[in-house]
Amino acid sequence: MDYPLLRDIHQPDDVKKLHKKDLKPLAEEIRAFMVERVSQTGGHIASSLGAVELILAMHRVFDLSEDSFIFDVGHQAYAHKILTGRKEKFHTLRQEGGLSGFPKREESIFDAFDTGHASTSVSAAVGMARAKKLRGESGAVVALAGDGALTGGLIWEAFNDLNGEALPLVVILNDNGMSISKNVGAINRSLSRLRTSKGYVAMKRGVVRTLDTSKLGKWLSRHLFRFKNWLKHILLPNLLFEEFGFVYIGTINGHKPKRLEKIFARARDLGRPVLVHCITQKGRGYEYSEEEPERFHGIAPFSVMTGKISGEGQRSCAAVFGDTLVEMAGENENIVAITAAMASGTGLSAFAEKYPDRFFDVGIAEEHAVTMAAGMAVAGLSPVLALYSSFLQRAFDELLHDVCLQNLPVVIALDRSGLVGEDGETHQGIYDPLFLSSVPNLAVYSPSSQEELSAMLRLAVQRRRPAVVRYNRGILPDEKMRRPIEYGRWEIVQPIAEVNLITSGTMLPTAHWIAKKSGYGCINARFLQPLDTEVLEELRRRNAKILVIEENVISLGQRVALWCNPARVECLGIPVCAVPHATVARQREWFGLTEANIERMARELAEGR
Amino acid sequence: MDYPLLRDIHQPDDVKKLHKKDLKPLAEEIRAFMVERVSQTGGHIASSLGAVELILAMHRVFDLSEDSFIFDVGHQAYAHKILTGRKEKFHTLRQEGGLSGFPKREESIFDAFDTGHASTSVSAAVGMARAKKLRGESGAVVALAGDGALTGGLIWEAFNDLNGEALPLVVILNDNGMSISKNVGAINRSLSRLRTSKGYVAMKRGVVRTLDTSKLGKWLSRHLFRFKNWLKHILLPNLLFEEFGFVYIGTINGHKPKRLEKIFARARDLGRPVLVHCITQKGRGYEYSEEEPERFHGIAPFSVMTGKISGEGQRSCAAVFGDTLVEMAGENENIVAITAAMASGTGLSAFAEKYPDRFFDVGIAEEHAVTMAAGMAVAGLSPVLALYSSFLQRAFDELLHDVCLQNLPVVIALDRSGLVGEDGETHQGIYDPLFLSSVPNLAVYSPSSQEELSAMLRLAVQRRRPAVVRYNRGILPDEKMRRPIEYGRWEIVQPIAEVNLITSGTMLPTAHWIAKKSGYGCINARFLQPLDTEVLEELRRRNAKILVIEENVISLGQRVALWCNPARVECLGIPVCAVPHATVARQREWFGLTEANIERMARELAEGR
Repeated sequence: MDYPLLRDIHQPDDVKKLHKKDLKPLAEEIRAFMVERVSQTGGHIASSLGAVELILAMHRVFDLSEDSFIFDVGHQAYAHKILTGRKEKFHTLRQEGGLSGFPKREESIFDAFDTGHASTSVSAAVGMARAKKLRGESGAVVALAGDGALTGGLIWEAFNDLNGEALPLVVILNDNGMSISKNVGAINRSLSRLRTSKGYVAMKRGVVRTLDTSKLGKWLSRHLFRFKNWLKHILLPNLLFEEFGFVYIGTINGHKPKRLEKIFARARDLGRPVLVHCITQKGRGYEYSEEEPERFHGIAPFSVMTGKISGEGQRSCAAVFGDTLVEMAGENENIVAITAAMASGTGLSAFAEKYPDRFFDVGIAEEHAVTMAAGMAVAGLSPVLALYSSFLQRAFDELLHDVCLQNLPVVIALDRSGLVGEDGETHQGIYDPLFLSSVPNLAVYSPSSQEELSAMLRLAVQRRRPAVVRYNRGILPDEKMRRPIEYGRWEIVQPIAEVNLITSGTMLPTAHWIAKKSGYGCINARFLQPLDTEVLEELRRRNAKILVIEENVISLGQRVALWCNPARVECLGIPVCAVPHATVARQREWFGLTEANIERMARELAEGR
Repeated sequence: MDYPLLRDIHQPDDVKKLHKKDLKPLAEEIRAFMVERVSQTGGHIASSLGAVELILAMHRVFDLSEDSFIFDVGHQAYAHKILTGRKEKFHTLRQEGGLSGFPKREESIFDAFDTGHASTSVSAAVGMARAKKLRGESGAVVALAGDGALTGGLIWEAFNDLNGEALPLVVILNDNGMSISKNVGAINRSLSRLRTSKGYVAMKRGVVRTLDTSKLGKWLSRHLFRFKNWLKHILLPNLLFEEFGFVYIGTINGHKPKRLEKIFARARDLGRPVLVHCITQKGRGYEYSEEEPERFHGIAPFSVMTGKISGEGQRSCAAVFGDTLVEMAGENENIVAITAAMASGTGLSAFAEKYPDRFFDVGIAEEHAVTMAAGMAVAGLSPVLALYSSFLQRAFDELLHDVCLQNLPVVIALDRSGLVGEDGETHQGIYDPLFLSSVPNLAVYSPSSQEELSAMLRLAVQRRRPAVVRYNRGILPDEKMRRPIEYGRWEIVQPIAEVNLITSGTMLPTAHWIAKKSGYGCINARFLQPLDTEVLEELRRRNAKILVIEENVISLGQRVALWCNPARVECLGIPVCAVPHATVARQREWFGLTEANIERMARELAEGR
């Protein structure tokens, strides 16, 4: 394909030189370019398609030599990458050594703040704007945030703290009426009301002007308890955003570059916090993503012609979880399901359809999801939350303080545990085994097959105690369990020997294979906590050599080392570090989580090195 | 003292039988009783003094055989404890085996949900109310929340999720214009506006009624763009709470029991979410706490006659931190200080006074505090946050995702680390060494003397990397450092020997004393991360015996065990559990963190057991 306008865009200033009439065609070129490239690499295409004109206008109005852009979540930043010198590398998106799928300060001086999780942009922007003010620097901070970001509490803390402070801050609300799936909650309802009331702002101004000049106004002023002040107090700041000290401008069609430019310039020149409310269409400009924006939120490589992904159809862990929960819900009416804007990603769509009254999507609000579940649990329900490992980090205190100190029957199905591949640093599910090991009363289940996943979920709910069942993004083997799950007990897959491999989850099949071949013991650590101290005691008694294998930052290994001390324990896992994007297979190679390396380490252990 | 009315109150129903004229005198008796008892035990007296009439009215209107009360944070629940059969035990408050300072389900069937951290009540209440609805149970859920709770994002997530759902939910906003210290932010500004506009609601109703009936109304309806609908849309739901689907009732004087009773009954009968906005006075009814509510927020035992605490005046860690930071700020104008509503508790009052432009109190909003600091850091400042260990749990994701993945120069001064004594389970600072050990790029400094604390803070800021400097609530020895702090290096306090004690912080003096006496090695692990692998390598090489001592859930010990494997490592620390209230000394005894026990364990290690 040829891109006559885009061809000449190499750095941010180039877009400023374009004639206004070229903006629309350029936007279309950028879209076509993104679809073409992302169909090869996979990526978060739907959000990025919707934000092209916004980003074009941002680059026309603001000057990145002094202004800064922060992209909330970062999914929508592809056009920004393309306009800031990364077009030629765009085919390397989300691939090893290539461009990150998210803004990255290390990647470009035009990326001001790394993002990945939702609702961080305004907090960061407030911090940056305060720094500029204190240091006497010029320039504005622009945060581009989706409407989904407003469902997260963090952004409300930022609004509250901002409190009308005179900061050079522009928040562009990219309102597509969806966050990842269809948006939920009161915020969305309020936004809809605005979306549908055209001319709202004009009318508001009209009313106040009328009151200033007309007889009616004077009458009102005299008779209705200072009614005019009232209207000023109530009409003007009535919107949530104005309560927090923003000048609110909206709603604006987010696909009209010229109009956007004008508005953004006005916002920039105000020198105080402005919120520009733009309406966009998620997935715009590519028919398949317009029709199914949720499926194209984050997508694997697909065919541009058909919108189809090759190799779809294998039964993911999410599907196993979802199907099992639907079954369980049929048997136990106290079971309810909770998601934080991830119904489809976590496999809960069927549940939501079959049991709408027992399904709760709370928005991108993991903290509330967990504490709300605690409330449900004390009142007799059996809540099951489906969250991604890296997003559970958000609810760490709620899990510890609200669920686990009270020892409540809340079960978390933790998807995207382990290495996540192309999403990279911010989405890695490798930290949870270690940080969860500090939480009292919590059991952590780690299934290594589809059947174990189902059985563990059942056991976790049945036990009525805090539990996390963690599993990976991809698929687990569809094979029969060798033995039923017993709470707190590990499975001896190959009898304890001089050298023993301890692992669970994704790494078990490889470990099992090596152990069988070489006559090592192999233990399926079905529970990362509590530890099976009977097995550990046996290993210690026999002064056995142990290799612990973990597809996460080392956690089980160090607990085993302390428990079995002074037995010989080696640990193969991920050091505490950031793991950038690449395929999962490559990421495993980086940390030696391969058959060859496990074999080598076990052999060295056997040979006493 | 004699309490003629309170004497006959033994269980919740007793208060329902009282004549209305007795309510005010009873409230005064409860206050006197609380002051008398808490002067002996210490406790959160100021909030509880302000909420007496609210709680009286709650008990008169609601019926705990089917309704449930949730107390946000839980500081204000003393009157509830006194009215629900715990009066006779109230002198045991916060003491070992006695009443908890917070609501506890294990303590009483009248405590519906355990609290301690802020802003959880509405999430929990929404969960409980949904459970009631699904299970077809009657009764309302009442959440009593201070205005400070509104500065936390969690509660906004709950509001958003609630979204006007028809739930039997009553939120009583106990607005005393302070959370812990003077409240901050936009929410507080909005509340003040309400507080000061008497008759606001009546007026609002009047206006609408006028429009319904008067000529003026008809004129407006015809001419001003459906102005009446407008007023309905804007006047009525203009307040934030109405945006979220609450019926808003306010403002109400929170010290008039009869009026409160009437309003609460109306709220109960509506059967849908109601928010009752009550104005109270923190510390009411005791002259010293009325004058200094912040000092009486949480207080040690004091003299009822003078309001003075015995033994005040020792230099706490917080004071050392605060003084050092003021000094540093004088030398480096990029240093800014951030607190989450804990300016005085964390020792930042002097900083706030001296550098008001460089001091940021963000409200009870640890998440925002950390991400905002990250924004400041990318823009060139050196933010230092002062937080309590147990509240950092709230900002775990923000620390990992926003600060540490980006490797930004944000320093957290982590107060109340280790065992916290009388506050009990929810406030323990014992989890951070383990959960922080999962965070990439983060250094954790652990000072064992006042001078080390200062020096470490300086080094942490100077290095411009993510850092936590953790210290305890009490005091550290005021003694000279033996050696300067070197980044990542432990201090050999007594030369490495056959048996070696590794510890830091509060436990170091004891370990040092024992090591000196018995000829053991003693190592001051000044950095909990990164580990000093040179020292560890030396210990491993010499196959030395090691005893790691930690006043927290075992974290360093297991890392040392893995590193030095197969050297002999024992660990003395706290298992992963909830630690209830008692004195710190007693809590240490529970876990063997005493001189005698350390001595015994070291001896056993020496003897090869």
